[in-house]
Amino acid sequence: MGSDRDVHDTEVSSRRRFLGKSAALGLAGAGVLAGCKENGAGAAASSSASAAAKSHSGSKVHVEPGQLDDYYLFSSGGHSGEARIIGIPSGRELRRIPVFNIDPMVGWGITNESKAILGTKADGSLKYTTGDTHHVHGSYKDGTYDGRYLWVNDKIHSRLARIRMDTMECDKITELPNVQGFHGIFPDKCDPVDKSINHTTRVFCGAEFAIPFPNDGRDLDDPSKWGSLFTCVDAETMAVRWQVRVDGNMDLTATSYDGRFACSNQYNTENAPDQAGMMSAERDACVFFDVARVEAMVKAGKFTTIGSSKVPVVDGRKAANADPKTAVTCYVPVGKNPHGVNASPDGKYMVCSGKLSPTATVIEVALVAKWFDGELKTERDAVVAEPEIGLGPLHTAFDGKGNAFTTLFLDSQIVKWNVAAAIAQFKGDKSAKPVVDRVDVHYQPGHGYASMGETKEADGKYFNSGNKFSKDRFLPVGPLHSETEQLIDITGDKMVIVSDHTAYPEPHDAIIVRRDIVKTRQIYNLDDFPNKVTAENAGITRNGNKVHVRLMSQAPAFSLPVIKVKKGDEVTITLTNHDKVEDLTHGCAIPTYNVNFIVNPQETKSVTFKADHAGAFWLYCTHFCHALHLEMRSRFLVEG
Amino acid sequence: MGSDRDVHDTEVSSRRRFLGKSAALGLAGAGVLAGCKENGAGAAASSSASAAAKSHSGSKVHVEPGQLDDYYLFSSGGHSGEARIIGIPSGRELRRIPVFNIDPMVGWGITNESKAILGTKADGSLKYTTGDTHHVHGSYKDGTYDGRYLWVNDKIHSRLARIRMDTMECDKITELPNVQGFHGIFPDKCDPVDKSINHTTRVFCGAEFAIPFPNDGRDLDDPSKWGSLFTCVDAETMAVRWQVRVDGNMDLTATSYDGRFACSNQYNTENAPDQAGMMSAERDACVFFDVARVEAMVKAGKFTTIGSSKVPVVDGRKAANADPKTAVTCYVPVGKNPHGVNASPDGKYMVCSGKLSPTATVIEVALVAKWFDGELKTERDAVVAEPEIGLGPLHTAFDGKGNAFTTLFLDSQIVKWNVAAAIAQFKGDKSAKPVVDRVDVHYQPGHGYASMGETKEADGKYFNSGNKFSKDRFLPVGPLHSETEQLIDITGDKMVIVSDHTAYPEPHDAIIVRRDIVKTRQIYNLDDFPNKVTAENAGITRNGNKVHVRLMSQAPAFSLPVIKVKKGDEVTITLTNHDKVEDLTHGCAIPTYNVNFIVNPQETKSVTFKADHAGAFWLYCTHFCHALHLEMRSRFLVEG
Repeated sequence: MGSDRDVHDTEVSSRRRFLGKSAALGLAGAGVLAGCKENGAGAAASSSASAAAKSHSGSKVHVEPGQLDDYYLFSSGGHSGEARIIGIPSGRELRRIPVFNIDPMVGWGITNESKAILGTKADGSLKYTTGDTHHVHGSYKDGTYDGRYLWVNDKIHSRLARIRMDTMECDKITELPNVQGFHGIFPDKCDPVDKSINHTTRVFCGAEFAIPFPNDGRDLDDPSKWGSLFTCVDAETMAVRWQVRVDGNMDLTATSYDGRFACSNQYNTENAPDQAGMMSAERDACVFFDVARVEAMVKAGKFTTIGSSKVPVVDGRKAANADPKTAVTCYVPVGKNPHGVNASPDGKYMVCSGKLSPTATVIEVALVAKWFDGELKTERDAVVAEPEIGLGPLHTAFDGKGNAFTTLFLDSQIVKWNVAAAIAQFKGDKSAKPVVDRVDVHYQPGHGYASMGETKEADGKYFNSGNKFSKDRFLPVGPLHSETEQLIDITGDKMVIVSDHTAYPEPHDAIIVRRDIVKTRQIYNLDDFPNKVTAENAGITRNGNKVHVRLMSQAPAFSLPVIKVKKGDEVTITLTNHDKVEDLTHGCAIPTYNVNFIVNPQETKSVTFKADHAGAFWLYCTHFCHALHLEMRSRFLVEG
Repeated sequence: MGSDRDVHDTEVSSRRRFLGKSAALGLAGAGVLAGCKENGAGAAASSSASAAAKSHSGSKVHVEPGQLDDYYLFSSGGHSGEARIIGIPSGRELRRIPVFNIDPMVGWGITNESKAILGTKADGSLKYTTGDTHHVHGSYKDGTYDGRYLWVNDKIHSRLARIRMDTMECDKITELPNVQGFHGIFPDKCDPVDKSINHTTRVFCGAEFAIPFPNDGRDLDDPSKWGSLFTCVDAETMAVRWQVRVDGNMDLTATSYDGRFACSNQYNTENAPDQAGMMSAERDACVFFDVARVEAMVKAGKFTTIGSSKVPVVDGRKAANADPKTAVTCYVPVGKNPHGVNASPDGKYMVCSGKLSPTATVIEVALVAKWFDGELKTERDAVVAEPEIGLGPLHTAFDGKGNAFTTLFLDSQIVKWNVAAAIAQFKGDKSAKPVVDRVDVHYQPGHGYASMGETKEADGKYFNSGNKFSKDRFLPVGPLHSETEQLIDITGDKMVIVSDHTAYPEPHDAIIVRRDIVKTRQIYNLDDFPNKVTAENAGITRNGNKVHVRLMSQAPAFSLPVIKVKKGDEVTITLTNHDKVEDLTHGCAIPTYNVNFIVNPQETKSVTFKADHAGAFWLYCTHFCHALHLEMRSRFLVEG
């Protein structure tokens, strides 16, 4: 099916053509949505004209040459396994951060240093070469970002990675034991007991998939025995501190500003192994964890362990937590198959989206605390609003002015709604109208997030809609499409789409951080690297068949013009870049030997390989550095 | 060295601060440039004020939401090993094309199909996981792009890859024998003998590094015996057709519009193994290959072979080609250490830049033909102009109106000069002034290329300056900087910088192609895949310990809810995506087993792995596809 489609299609006509298909798509195999069908189709059709009127004036967000962006957007990269830094409002990709993927450009997964972070098998090869990053969140202090760390998770292999924000590089990766489908993460913002520790010390991790405990081949045919764990990782050491076993599974994660609670929205509270079973219940839940109580249980030895893991596992299932006053978990019923929970910047509410219910559920954090104190009749009484906002609500962001912005996957819209109005309506005020505005997005948004929206400093400037389908929004590039990231100006009453940015699939979630918060270093410190090469130790040393080549780079030359080894040697090359000029990065590649990495100014990296091919191989600089960059090369000679 | 630099620096002040450093950088260790120092520094300083005036009005290139770009930019990705598609003028990355790198997102280097293209070792693991892409060029017909193929090279492992433009995926990779430092490529535009074959049938490849022949450990200490080969690859079969041994090395490659010549600029005509020796001669050269004569030599059996390679190697060294009438090569002397050769759109000239000489050398193709016909006294007589244009000239592009645009690495400028004026000046017209305009770029440009500039349809709309240093042009992101791609409007007399785009290091070269030329398909054809899975063959079959799982995806489910195998089995999963809706891609990941790939609409892919861990593993969809995407998963059970 070669395509000769007319690239001059107008926006409106192509949107209509698409929605015809998407209605079928959204509803296929999901009979549960049938009741909403008419409403959904009507809403989409009626709003497409207004959307055309609202998409304009992008020129005001064009960042002129030489000007800087106002915000950093830190994004996950989905099954690319990486994280990304984007400038906002320009949408320019400022940097990729390899995390769970191999990246020849920087030598990630190739250098000894990165292999130590990624983890290797007994033969020295990488344990995993793929990952599926979902959520990026930053470390907090006083309820806002402190610019120290970012965390990002891998859903495939249940790993949590940390990125240090001064260099924007991954420095630690932790694999969670007895967890599969690790989806949501969130750092805490305050210690639950000691309020003077008002910065991030823990990262919470929610897991989707139930598995046997331990997962060694037992109970394969009896999924009723399988379970899911909620995990707490230490923000500094990155060690796993504890886990809580829950009923159902978990999806996104959020934390309260006062440090008392972590929570996770739950689809499949039915614990079903198949799709039909996952949608059989009337409601699902948002499960709250009382962090201090969990840690008291651990301290008191009231835990078990699973298989060879030594991590304490506390029982957070409903049956073991019937008494609110001693419970570690509280399951608040919310709309069906929710996908997303987000904390409002005033610290008062958690908002859970319905996905298969056209509602968002507003839970008051203080009422959850009351439940744990035994002062609330039922968990559901913590719900203070549940406005109908549209079809397929997924994620909610906030402007810091009392408004919430929720992505509607099925309606392909962003809906702006007022939290106070929703609460009033829930209390019975029939004049209250929560929905303030709607805008069509293109197409089918997943995550949405606002500038500083997950902090107390939410500033109501931009909302980014991470759309899962781009269809005809960009020049065609074959069957694999880019995602559409639509930047929306939310400063006024009406939302205005100001840019369509592209993204290599698939950034799930991101945060938008004010630029003054981020303080990077532009060159390394030579002494940060214990294996640094200097004039004193540079050269070639041999110990049996192990050869260590200590090399320096300074534009436009490597310190050794000739490196000679013998076939069969185990060769380690350690390279220190002695250039001190910002941006003066060198590269190092060796043909046949699959060596390829860079050294930034004052950085040291190393590779180890077996010299198993005799011959002459030109070690060359891969990163344009100087007028004589092409001439920057040394002869790596392997004697047969 | 933590940085708290003020991100509000003005453009002019930051440029001045940088140039102070860059002067030292550009000249460090390169005494040959000392004579030009004063001129260079003066030129840069005097033009920085005008540059500020010329950088503006970017808003007119902002592509409004819902609007499409005018051009495709196809770019190499340097040591990332990939190729990229960018929209112009927006600068949006429309797609990455994995070529020599592993890309978990699409499963490149992970699926059986991509491993077969990349090449594997005896144990089934990839032969190489890194690459260093330099040049992207498209297939031609009638002197312009026909939209069929792109080619891109790997400098590290001497490979040429082809990308089919209907799906924008790499379909073949060829490793060149006895070649190292494979730098430049260019497709031919016409057959040298049969003018009715006016489309691309050959791709020419220039190699930088001299190596022993064969490279098996011999002659390690005698670089005078080493050599470089120019290679011709068949555009359809991707088999290596022939090679020519040359004196010196080669860098960039170009072809004449009439099909008679391929050529390559040469630095290090001295054949020196060290940097000082590479700069000792007065001039270097541009070597021209008479393609028909080379092929006649091959046909006549006048060739040798090297080592185990069966590829015919013709002797193109000067000593063997003293008689122009039988020569296969012509070495035209040009400015010192040139880095770049480009054909003018009128088919008349090749322009070689000097790099260490402040000149560009204009070679008339008809005069080179005269030399081969024995009608020109010396090779140097083919030179018709050599204007002084600035410091560190690298690459030249054309507007189709008689003007050339050359990147000046040391001056950090683009210089616009008129070819006819340069020829007149060379002939002695002292009133002729070749240089028309200069604009500062930020900073230190490598490749530059114009819209349709390498075709007869050069349209003089845009020039892209691929700058190797970005310094302070973007928000700081740590020691590793983005590159700056500056888009310049060249429609008027004066160049105007309209956008600063970012690029993950490091796109060397690119082409800018009118959008109507590119015809992609948006879904695959099920029958393109011999191993497709349909309702007829779907299911699990076992042959000894080999298990074949034939799976189908259709939103929101895989065809098998449970897949059961035994520990120790060799499992192949073949997955066909039966969704037909454009952009409805599914993913397939399996925890612990490092499986991660996608299937686009109607596509089939497969993976093979050993089931060496007992347990329950959720095979899940990684590519957001449907409201019930999270619920789209199957149980992969491995019995212990």
